[in-house]
Amino acid sequence: MEVDFARARVAVVGLGLMGGSLCAALRTRGACREVIGVARRPATLQMARDLRFIDRGATDLAEGLRDADVVVLATPVRDILEKLATIGPLLAPGALVMDIGSTKLAICRAMDGLPEGIQPLGGHPMCGKESSGLTMADPTLYRDRVFVLVPLPRTAPEALEMGRALARGVGARPLVIARGYTGEARAYTGEARGYTDADTGEADAPGEFPGAARHDRLVAAISHLPFMLASALVEAAAATAEGDPLAWELAAGGFRDTSRVAASDPTMMLDILATNRDEVLRALREARGQLDRLTRLLEEGDLEALHRAIEVARNRRMEILP
Amino acid sequence: MEVDFARARVAVVGLGLMGGSLCAALRTRGACREVIGVARRPATLQMARDLRFIDRGATDLAEGLRDADVVVLATPVRDILEKLATIGPLLAPGALVMDIGSTKLAICRAMDGLPEGIQPLGGHPMCGKESSGLTMADPTLYRDRVFVLVPLPRTAPEALEMGRALARGVGARPLVIARGYTGEARAYTGEARGYTDADTGEADAPGEFPGAARHDRLVAAISHLPFMLASALVEAAAATAEGDPLAWELAAGGFRDTSRVAASDPTMMLDILATNRDEVLRALREARGQLDRLTRLLEEGDLEALHRAIEVARNRRMEILP
Repeated sequence: MEVDFARARVAVVGLGLMGGSLCAALRTRGACREVIGVARRPATLQMARDLRFIDRGATDLAEGLRDADVVVLATPVRDILEKLATIGPLLAPGALVMDIGSTKLAICRAMDGLPEGIQPLGGHPMCGKESSGLTMADPTLYRDRVFVLVPLPRTAPEALEMGRALARGVGARPLVIARGYTGEARAYTGEARGYTDADTGEADAPGEFPGAARHDRLVAAISHLPFMLASALVEAAAATAEGDPLAWELAAGGFRDTSRVAASDPTMMLDILATNRDEVLRALREARGQLDRLTRLLEEGDLEALHRAIEVARNRRMEILP
Repeated sequence: MEVDFARARVAVVGLGLMGGSLCAALRTRGACREVIGVARRPATLQMARDLRFIDRGATDLAEGLRDADVVVLATPVRDILEKLATIGPLLAPGALVMDIGSTKLAICRAMDGLPEGIQPLGGHPMCGKESSGLTMADPTLYRDRVFVLVPLPRTAPEALEMGRALARGVGARPLVIARGYTGEARAYTGEARGYTDADTGEADAPGEFPGAARHDRLVAAISHLPFMLASALVEAAAATAEGDPLAWELAAGGFRDTSRVAASDPTMMLDILATNRDEVLRALREARGQLDRLTRLLEEGDLEALHRAIEVARNRRMEILP
């Protein structure tokens, strides 16, 4: 397996917004030896060539993966799962297989089924746009963004290092979430400490993916929950607007920003919700509880308590994101 | 009463973000004869002078209002209500009294108690920022924004016209919401049609403020509801982050935008919620219903229906705000 990312041939499967931007970033920054685009339609590959996002392209998966040192699966989550079930034989020995899907547990479990010798590594760059497709691709999409990396127990340290190099290669900041000293899944930006608990010598049990599980719980709260709330907001406001379309003329920046992520691609979001169901339901229960609390205080006219509640949230928001 | 806005002396009571920006816009654009700032603290007036936002200032309300042709109340809603109860004797005969508070029904009712001869006009510019205070004031804040005007039954057409001139004078687009031909409260951007139903000759009944009520129902859906959802989101995500602060490191643009309005000034928001309670509760019930629907579909695993639901919201969002 190629151990120097700058000399790696990288195949990106799926040339939508995310895959296209990944190719664009790698190529623009000269981060690796060759960028191979894999897409179903020749027209997509032609556009990617015209945009100079790829060195070469393939509509045939086998052809695209044949010589790749690094493979990045950049299609919707359920398509990634389908591909993981079948690409084993198509990979070069020792190849690194990554993904950039928005949920990790299902994908990491599926990656664990890849043939021995293949290096799997879950990935999730924390960036995106509501618009989709190669025409929206942007080489700067990943710049300065957190790029989560979730190694499996079987992932070799060199493979994790290649993943870090890929993240840096597109201008992002790698953040590894894996088991560490305390036995808890932990995050660190330094050297990988291996995947055993240094105190007990305990490794991840087979089938356990604490880093992936932790990732999925966190993104349920800070990414998937906002989507659900934005979606509910749009339809709730629409109920008023149906009786009085003037509503939309009054909608300003507050409505625009709070509802923006409701425009996310529905297929991509469905895959996310379907593969992170339990954590999303947990986050929804929490949000329901918070909303019910504010509602009750307003209903009861407890203005002091309502003031305190919204002040707590205001202070917290300012603290998290100054 | 001065009928030419360009020759009007305009007193703005309250030099926070909104009042300060209003003064700044009027003065920068040379829209009226004189801009008088009224604030409780001399330091605020000094800053407003230094910034060239006002021609003169007064800490004493009587002094500030004495020669004003137009008075704009730019303090939080409940302070506006308090002032409306007492400023009658301080106003010049025929003065136009406006406000820029975020709810209208309570304010319009209070305005109806102003002495005969005084011209009341409810106002609500659809713009703002989370940050507050004169230091955040911006002469361009109102530019191209919708500025809602809600005349009372007693508001003379000339007074409404002055209100329109003020809105245009700060670069905004006046949108009048008042009773019209159909007997329904309607919006129009053309000439005021008077406040009787042209079909039935029916005027607003005493104590009825259909434009104000309509305004309050609409802003509950497109402004106050987003705030409540954003606030609930922050605290729901915080519950996860309390067990795992890594959550905040993963929070990106989606969380930032969906939660932004949670940072609105709590005192201002409390006044808004307190004076628009019923409509906000109605909007909350609608949002709860939408959220429950999405939750149930995810719980039951009805992915087709969930896909359709989030697709409807996505399409609607793209349609409202392309």
